[in-house]
Order: sequence, then C-alpha cells, then structure tokens
Amino acid sequence: MLVLDNDDVATAPAIKAEITAQHTLHGGTLYFLKHDSAATKTPMALSVFVPEGEGPFPVFLWLSGLTCTANNFTEKAGAYKKAAELGLIVVAPDTSPRGEGVANDDAYDMGQGAGFYVNATQSPWAAHFQMETYVTRDLLELIGAQFPTDMSRVGISGHSMGGHGALTLAMNHSNLFTSVSAFAPIASPVHCPWGQKAMAGYLGPNHDAWEIYDAAMRLARGKALSYDDILIDQGLADPFLDTQLMPHLLEQAAKVVGQKLTLRRHEGYDHSYYFIASFIDDHLEFHAARLKT
Amino acid sequence: MLVLDNDDVATAPAIKAEITAQHTLHGGTLYFLKHDSAATKTPMALSVFVPEGEGPFPVFLWLSGLTCTANNFTEKAGAYKKAAELGLIVVAPDTSPRGEGVANDDAYDMGQGAGFYVNATQSPWAAHFQMETYVTRDLLELIGAQFPTDMSRVGISGHSMGGHGALTLAMNHSNLFTSVSAFAPIASPVHCPWGQKAMAGYLGPNHDAWEIYDAAMRLARGKALSYDDILIDQGLADPFLDTQLMPHLLEQAAKVVGQKLTLRRHEGYDHSYYFIASFIDDHLEFHAARLKT
Repeated sequence: MLVLDNDDVATAPAIKAEITAQHTLHGGTLYFLKHDSAATKTPMALSVFVPEGEGPFPVFLWLSGLTCTANNFTEKAGAYKKAAELGLIVVAPDTSPRGEGVANDDAYDMGQGAGFYVNATQSPWAAHFQMETYVTRDLLELIGAQFPTDMSRVGISGHSMGGHGALTLAMNHSNLFTSVSAFAPIASPVHCPWGQKAMAGYLGPNHDAWEIYDAAMRLARGKALSYDDILIDQGLADPFLDTQLMPHLLEQAAKVVGQKLTLRRHEGYDHSYYFIASFIDDHLEFHAARLKT
Repeated sequence: MLVLDNDDVATAPAIKAEITAQHTLHGGTLYFLKHDSAATKTPMALSVFVPEGEGPFPVFLWLSGLTCTANNFTEKAGAYKKAAELGLIVVAPDTSPRGEGVANDDAYDMGQGAGFYVNATQSPWAAHFQMETYVTRDLLELIGAQFPTDMSRVGISGHSMGGHGALTLAMNHSNLFTSVSAFAPIASPVHCPWGQKAMAGYLGPNHDAWEIYDAAMRLARGKALSYDDILIDQGLADPFLDTQLMPHLLEQAAKVVGQKLTLRRHEGYDHSYYFIASFIDDHLEFHAARLKT
C-alpha cells in the first residue's frame, strides 16, 4: 500500500513532498517529486520507482554524475523492468542543490549539477552544498516515511561522480547500506583534476578533509569491510578512464585490506548511459541478492 | 561484417552517411548518422543499432511521434537489450526534415518535428516534406547498402504520429514490410484535430488524398491483408486516447475485412516513453517471430 496517493501532495510528520509527475511503467509507478531539504535549504528533485505489490520493498539508491539531474538515470538507464521483476524501489536524486541564490560555477564540474556528495565547508558553497547530509538523512527519511520501504535493506550505486558518491557514502555510513556498486566511479578524487578542483572548492586546502571523501583511501583503511563484495563496471573506451577515474586504485586499496572487490573491464564501452544501460541489470541483481537475505 | 567502419564517413554507390556518434551497448553498436536525402533535399538524422555477430540481420524500423527526433526512442525506449538478444537491427529516423530554409510552423503539431510520414503536395511544405518517400526509399536504401541487413525482412512500428506512419506505410508499401505494430497510433487522421490540421496543410482540401494516409480507412479497404496480425498497444490513461488516437476505429475497420488485429488496452498507462518502454520487448518479439521465418 502506497503512503503517497494521487492528491499531488503527500504529508508525514515534518516531511512533505510534491508529486510533479507520475507514470505507470512495468506494472509499477514512477514518481517525480520535489521536497524541501533541511540540509541544502532548497527544494530538491528526485524520482522514485515503486514496483507493483504490497511491499515493504528494499531500496536501490542511484547517484548520478556530473551535469545530471534526476532525469538522466530515470529516462536512459532502462533499469525499471528488472527492478519491477526483482521488487526493488529505485530512488534517483538530483546531483546538487539548484536555483537562484545557490552558488554556481560556469564550469560543468563544479557547483550546480556537480555537488560531489560532500558537505561543503567553504564559502560560497557551504550555505547549500550539503549533499552528504541530504542523501544520508533527508532523502532516506523521505523515502522511509512516504513509500512502502524496508529501510534496513538499502543498496547504493552510481555513475562517475555518483560512483564516487556511492562508494564514499557506503563507506562513511555503513550503518545505512547493505550493498554497494558503481559504474566508472571517480575512484580517488585526491588524484584527479575533477576531484582536486571540487575538493579544494568545497572543502578547502586541508587534505585531511579530502581523504574522507576519497573512495580508494577509505577502502585502504578498511571502511568497506562490512560489504561482502563491491561490484565495479568500467568501460575501456571511456575517455576519462586514465585521467579522472583510475579504478585500478580501488583494486590496489582493496588488496591492502583483503576487501573483496569485483572490477569488470569492458572492451569498447564508453562513459555514456548506453554503457550503464548495458550492465544495470547485473547491478540490480547484485544488490537484490544482498538486500533480500 | 559491418560495411560502415570507424572512418566516420562511409560511402556506397550514391549513398553517403556520416557517423556523428557511436556507442557500444549490449554487445552491439549504436550509430548516430546523418545523410543527404534526395526526397527531402536536406540532411536527415537517424540512429541505427547493429547487434553483435555477422548478420545479415532483419530490420526493426521505428517511427517516432510529434516533437521527437531520432533521439527519443534511442535514449528512452530501452529497446536494445531485447534487440541484441533477438538479433535485430533497429533503425530510428527523425520525424521530419529540419533546418534553415525548411518550412516550419510555430505549433508542435505541424512542420519540423511533425512530418506525419506523408508526401506533401501543398506550398510551402512540398519542397522538403516528402517523408513517405524518404522512409520507404532513401532510408531503406541507406540501411540496405551500409549495414549487414536482410532487406527482405523488415518490420515497422512507431508511436502516436509514428504509429500512424507505421500503419499507413505498411499498408501502402506492403511489398517492403513483413510485420507491423504500433503504440497509441493516430488511427484515423481524417477524424481527429491533429490529423485534420496536418492533412489539410500538407495535402490540401481534397479528402481523397487524405484517405491514402488514414490507417483505419486503408485497413477497411483490405490494404493490410498481407499481414497475419497487427499488434497495437494503447494506454487507458493516455490523455489523447479519445480525442486524437481512437484505436477502436482500427478494430472496427479490421472487423469489416476480416483482418486480424490485436489491440491491447492497458489500465493506467499514459502516452509517454515509459509506456513504450513497458511493452517494447513484446513488440520486438512480435516482429522477430515474423521476420525470422
């Protein structure tokens, strides 16, 4: 039974969400929502797919990459047929706060559309760019309160900047998540131009603060040992592979602490949503196997 | 073996196509192409998915609806996993000629993005809006010459205006197509505002010309009798169902001539690509069953 109904406005204690669009697909329902986040102090947009049936359902949380909104994954990944079959709720939030009064940068790799899933400490970003708290608190509270979820069974995944987000949030909040995977993640922001720019901007010059958001470094400290395996898919025709992503650093870090990590390298695949669409079913099955037990 | 290679330009006698983008997905390759059409006297854009393997492959041709380019189906339908599995080449052309010097209309339902798959006879449209000839001649010639196709096995389908296109082209060119289906087609342009506006604009006031492009009327004349069945999917929450689409007119026409037609009505589904994504695999299987024999 859905807590949300078709009134276009759903309420729960202290949590409100507006349904901005709604579609039936694969026997389930896809909602586009807007809700006010206390963390970002802005409205935040997201999509939620709810499969047919009573629930409670486990949750697959997807974090998107640079320049994306909630829509990219929702429209392009082709994830919902398998999610419907497996009985997974699928949640895709936006990649940053947005709007007038929210700081921005002319480049695509900083500011709106590029929140990096960190809690910014530096001006002008700190006022709204609190994406770690947004995802791990406000978003999960909303989903838990408004949908037929079992919040003790949540898996997290994402692409590129969102792969970095999935890995680091899974490691820094291992109490919240049961399973984690990523597509072409930024494995070590400390070691790549995208990461260095974002970390310096959001967190300032102190590298101690950066390391908390560096997946390879967290992995090497054993922060993922509660996960029995981590699935990573990487295309070998991805133009960002060597300069920005560097998934081999995850392999190396995993080896240091005896963390199981499955890194699959795919000949010919690039960085696009066509790559994600090709392997998303494998990820959904990877998570479902862990979320159902 | 692909005739097209990675040179970014492919040539065949009198046929040239430029590869504007290329992606690996589901083991196959997706090409975005641009080629000059003699029919429209403009460059035309399309996408072509080629599955893994040697071929020759049968072809599934998709025609999109109002406002669409080749990208909507390509990005949103989630068709390629099943197409790869079935060994189908999937072709998605644009919905009209475009560009400077091509007539247009401020409304979304006429002009660029709204070619209705007819050969226009009226000014200013006749100069470029020759979409029937474009699809049935130039596009099929390109696909036949440049890809490992078996052009004796081509199925056609589409959505809304593209469903109208698929049905009428299949009936008016039954020598070219082996199978036909549609999602939420404009069943009878003569009887709906979208169709009346487009037919009057492209074809002038003479209704005899309109009837050639009216699926329900062609069906009632037995023009689809070479097809053993026609699969139509229609969402019952589609806001255009009663005023623009009227699929019951297809049922009635089919009955008149003893044409088999399977019209499936789906509770809750709307007019979006989420509806298409939910049932595209059924259509691909419907066509594959007929194209393989």
